[in-house]
This record gives sequence, structure tokens and C-alpha cells, in this order.
Amino acid sequence: MNIAQLITEIKAKQSYLCVGLDTDISKLPDGISKDIDGILAFNKEIINATKDYAVSYKINTAFYEQLGSKGWEVLEKTRELIPSNILSIADAKRGDIGNTSTMYAKAFFETMDFDALTVAPYMGFDSIEPFLKFDNKITIVLGLTSNKGSLDFQTNDLYSPPLYKTVLEKVSQWGTMDNLMFVVGATKAEALKEIRAIVPDHFLLIPGVGAQGGSAVEVCENGINKNGGLLINSSRGIIYASSGKDFAEVAREKAKQLALETRPFTTHL
Amino acid sequence: MNIAQLITEIKAKQSYLCVGLDTDISKLPDGISKDIDGILAFNKEIINATKDYAVSYKINTAFYEQLGSKGWEVLEKTRELIPSNILSIADAKRGDIGNTSTMYAKAFFETMDFDALTVAPYMGFDSIEPFLKFDNKITIVLGLTSNKGSLDFQTNDLYSPPLYKTVLEKVSQWGTMDNLMFVVGATKAEALKEIRAIVPDHFLLIPGVGAQGGSAVEVCENGINKNGGLLINSSRGIIYASSGKDFAEVAREKAKQLALETRPFTTHL
Repeated sequence: MNIAQLITEIKAKQSYLCVGLDTDISKLPDGISKDIDGILAFNKEIINATKDYAVSYKINTAFYEQLGSKGWEVLEKTRELIPSNILSIADAKRGDIGNTSTMYAKAFFETMDFDALTVAPYMGFDSIEPFLKFDNKITIVLGLTSNKGSLDFQTNDLYSPPLYKTVLEKVSQWGTMDNLMFVVGATKAEALKEIRAIVPDHFLLIPGVGAQGGSAVEVCENGINKNGGLLINSSRGIIYASSGKDFAEVAREKAKQLALETRPFTTHL
Repeated sequence: MNIAQLITEIKAKQSYLCVGLDTDISKLPDGISKDIDGILAFNKEIINATKDYAVSYKINTAFYEQLGSKGWEVLEKTRELIPSNILSIADAKRGDIGNTSTMYAKAFFETMDFDALTVAPYMGFDSIEPFLKFDNKITIVLGLTSNKGSLDFQTNDLYSPPLYKTVLEKVSQWGTMDNLMFVVGATKAEALKEIRAIVPDHFLLIPGVGAQGGSAVEVCENGINKNGGLLINSSRGIIYASSGKDFAEVAREKAKQLALETRPFTTHL
């Protein structure tokens, strides 16, 4: 799946919604077994319930790794459940020296055939370039994150321009809008206009809506571009919206709500 | 295993050697099957051959992840092969928002029982703190890395003090020398004196000796402290020193050489 297909999907569904599959055994709802098999069963139901509104699914690798190799197996099987017209993102925040980054790229882009992968920028060009070399795959580099710790290095008082702007400026020269996106937290919607001045064309993956407090409408108001250019992620706010047997139905309703909320920002597409 | 036990081990073996198990099917030597089982067999022989000189083993997760869940299983089994008196490091460079970092910490510190884990600093305090909360576990944060890309953000012309010094200064306040180390590339030996001015007591994990061109002696001259305070990693230079059936013997010899090279710097312990 490539960016052109993603844009087609956004137009068709009039939605920027990315559903985060941060699935945790301790939070599985009634009617789902509270074990490793329950994770896969839950993911399957969530995907089926939300796929009419989601243009992307983001799987957070940490939740699967904590369960060891059996968890990694569920990660692989969950990847296989994502329909081919919907962008699959591994939220893994990898990055290492060149030959090691190539191994990570193979793990996620070849072995598991994810469409996209999140990557940390600290180690610079040769830690990111290996990911960008894979055809029809998308590297999503951390820009400005949604958490409080973003104040420590990304936007501290020491550096002007702030580190995250330097990251956006440099990294955007290493790839194109077809193989590169950036993570920008929804809790930083006010920064999106400045970010759009640096990266007008690239897609932005926006976590932090819902449980973390960001507003999808504010994100659209400040972050939209001519292709839409946004993937707005909600994880806990959708998948754990109900802990009852109606969890899938409620998740569908929450996904629909979020898609409708941002629908006015898809009319120009 | 804790820092006091590591120091005891360094004294006993008069060595700072960390052996990196970056095991790649395509590089397995003669006499080892060129498949996933071969990786485990190879790691077992390398560990047995080098354990008299190594005070630590570092497993690079990328090499295992590229093989999918079966590779993750070999990662788990390799962890189990590391003797309990030798520090086990997962070189995974993880880091995410708080609740996700806690999941990664559980994956490596609990599920797999690694003694230590490498972590990327870009997302700041709440991405690192969850790792530091685990008792008797060591978080190893990227400081100044060995690759060329370190010039992009860690030591670029824009920022004074350079980003890596800000990372060392801030992060060193979040942990103690008992639960926190830093990664400093051996290819940056000249920077070690300045780094020691910022973090005089913490252990430093030093990759980049051997294949990447760093000198173990220069590292010691500039980086040693009262407890030794160094783990000097060699991966390819030891484990792939011979592609013949004598690979274990040659690996042992290379490990011994590196230990002997830095032995003069252990006499003060």
C-alpha cells in the first residue's frame, strides 16, 4: 500500500482515523478470554467493527513484546488481519546504526509486511536511511511527541530552533512525501501551523487524541493540507470504550464519531 | 545481577569485555547449519568460548526480530544461555510514552529477565523513568553514538552545548550509577574526557571497537574511572573472526586479546 492508495482511502471513507491496537490482556472486555488467544480474538473483532471508518491501524509492538515470542506471534497474526486497503503501521520506534536499521526494516517491512514503521531520529541519517530504501514502504519519524517529556529535549529552553524543528527540517530532505511521514502529538495542536511551514506536504501521524487529551478538530484546523495529510490515531478511546460484551459495537460507534468529527475537513479532497 | 556484582566480575576477570551477539544466518561459519537453529547453536558455542573473558553479553534484538516470532524465540533462548555472573544486555533502543515504556520494561526485564536494556532518549523523562523503576535492572541510555549520523542531532553546529551533553546532564539526574549507564561510541574516544566531566561515576557501554574502528586502549585512557566504569563491546570482530570450523577457538582468542589489551587499566580496582 502506498500514499496514493491511502489518499484514495481517506477520500472514500471521508476519514483520517487510525485505530491503535494497544491491546492489553488486563483490559480485555467481557466475553473475551483473558489470555494471549483473547488478544487476537479481540483485535479481530475490533478490526471488523471499525474498518468502515479506519484508514489505518497502528499496532504498538510493546504490548505484544511483553508477552514474549508468543506475543510476537500474535503481533504477526494481527498484522495479517488488517485489510490490504487499510494502512498497517508498526509503532515500534526503532533506530540503530545502518546495518542494524536494515535488519529492523526487514523485520517489519519484509518478514511482517507492514506498510509503515515508526522510527526514532536520535542517531541521525544513517539510522533512518535504511528504512527509506524499501520500495512502497513508509517510514514515520518522531517529530514532536505528545508526552510531557517532549519538553526535555524536543522543545527545551536551551535550543533555538527547537530540536524537533531541526529534526523535521533535516529528515524531510532525506525522503519524500511518498516514503516519509512524521509523528506530531495531538496535544501540541498549536504547534501544527509552524510544523506545516516546515513540512507542508508530508503526512503527519497524530497520536494523543482521546485518552491523552488532544482535540481532533483542532488538529485538522491547524494541520490539514491539500491531500488531507493527516492520520489521527485513537487507541484506548476506541478499543476500551466499553468493557462489556458490547465492546465491538461501542468501538464502532466511537470510531464513527471520530470520523464524523473530522469529516468537514475532508470536503476539499 | 547488579552493578556491584558487575564490578566484582570485572576485577576477577581483569576485563571490560562485552561480546555482542549480532548473529546473522548469512554469516554463520562452517560446521553450523545455516538456519534459525544454527543461530542458537552458534551463540551457545560463542558464549562457551568467550565466557572466561567476557563480563557482559549484548544481544542486538534487530538480528532476531528480522526472523519473526521464531527469531524472538531464539532471542529468549539465547538470553537463557548467558551465565548469571555475566551481565546480559538487550540492545533494543526502545522508548515511548510512559505506559508503553512500562510494557517494554516488562518485556525485557521481566518476561526475558535481561539485566540491562538500551533506551533512546528523544522522548524525555517519562519515556525513560518507567525503566528506572525496576529493581536491580540497568537502563542504558544513548549518549553519543558511534555512527556518522551522530553529527546530525547529537553534535551538530546548531546547538551549544551539543545535544548529547544535554542528554547526559539531564538523564544522569534521573537515575543513579546503580541503575543507569550511557552508550558512548568508541569512535568518539576524544570526547570521553568531557563526558567524564559530566558523568564521572556512571558506567559507559562502548560500542564501535573493532569493525567500526575504535581503539580499546584510547577508550580506557580517556574513559576509565575508579570502578572501571566501562563495558567495551566487540561484536563482528569476535564472533565472525573466523568463518571456518575453528570459529569458537578464534573467537576465544580474539576475546582474550581484547581483554589483555585493556588489562593494564584494571590494576587500580
